[in-house]
Amino acid sequence: MLPRTYDNQVCSVARALEAIGDRWTMLVIRDAFRGVSRFEDFQKRLGIARNVLADRLNRLVDEGILTKKAYQERPERFEYRLTEKGLDLFPVLMSLMKWGDRHAPDEAGPPLVVLHRGCGGEIDARLRCDRCGESITALNAEARQPVPSAG
Amino acid sequence: MLPRTYDNQVCSVARALEAIGDRWTMLVIRDAFRGVSRFEDFQKRLGIARNVLADRLNRLVDEGILTKKAYQERPERFEYRLTEKGLDLFPVLMSLMKWGDRHAPDEAGPPLVVLHRGCGGEIDARLRCDRCGESITALNAEARQPVPSAG
Repeated sequence: MLPRTYDNQVCSVARALEAIGDRWTMLVIRDAFRGVSRFEDFQKRLGIARNVLADRLNRLVDEGILTKKAYQERPERFEYRLTEKGLDLFPVLMSLMKWGDRHAPDEAGPPLVVLHRGCGGEIDARLRCDRCGESITALNAEARQPVPSAG
Repeated sequence: MLPRTYDNQVCSVARALEAIGDRWTMLVIRDAFRGVSRFEDFQKRLGIARNVLADRLNRLVDEGILTKKAYQERPERFEYRLTEKGLDLFPVLMSLMKWGDRHAPDEAGPPLVVLHRGCGGEIDARLRCDRCGESITALNAEARQPVPSAG
């Protein structure tokens, strides 16, 4: 068990990690931001064991990060959507992505760029549009795979 | 094993989580940002098993996030410091803290505030100073425990 207190004080980083401090959990959240909502789709994209995925989705629902809603009755099937609390993880996800782009890069360059929808500028490390300077949030962001350079 | 590819593409979030995707790892990094550098001090603050701590520190050194340097010879003792790659995790840590402040709050309010050194403004969710608007980084940030309000 991760202790909740350090130096007799609480810590928001520790509390946040209690909710999302797991690699699979963050990857489920990442895919939710990309519009994935159905169990089968998460499973296919992540290649994760079904019981592990079910556990992570249920925990995210318990934490109020995802909502679970039936979209089909027989057999019963559910979809999972980010709540406001979940959407607020956008800066966490983007700062992880930016760090990975810089420090764990792929030879081919960043696998995904996040753009300011309508403007086309790219999100910078401070989550601002590098073209117009506006703050980029989950609501005005758009993910694109960069066009591979000829070579 | 966490697969490195999804939809036949790499992902910077997945790559970042391979380096830091573990609760203890992030808490070690958090304490390193607060100036903790010695094994014994990490151990005392985190209440973590010594073998687990040693494993996480070694992984962070292998990943180039911490450096390890002897500060004493007999017995040999090491200190661990953030590299530039490690310092660049500041936005990840701050966005986690801000999310925890908002969505997993403690009754007494945020346990720690991060201030713009010299100015005294508080860091906002976009990692800017709420007083002067300047970007806050690991280099101009200062952590303080808020003064408890009289009750």
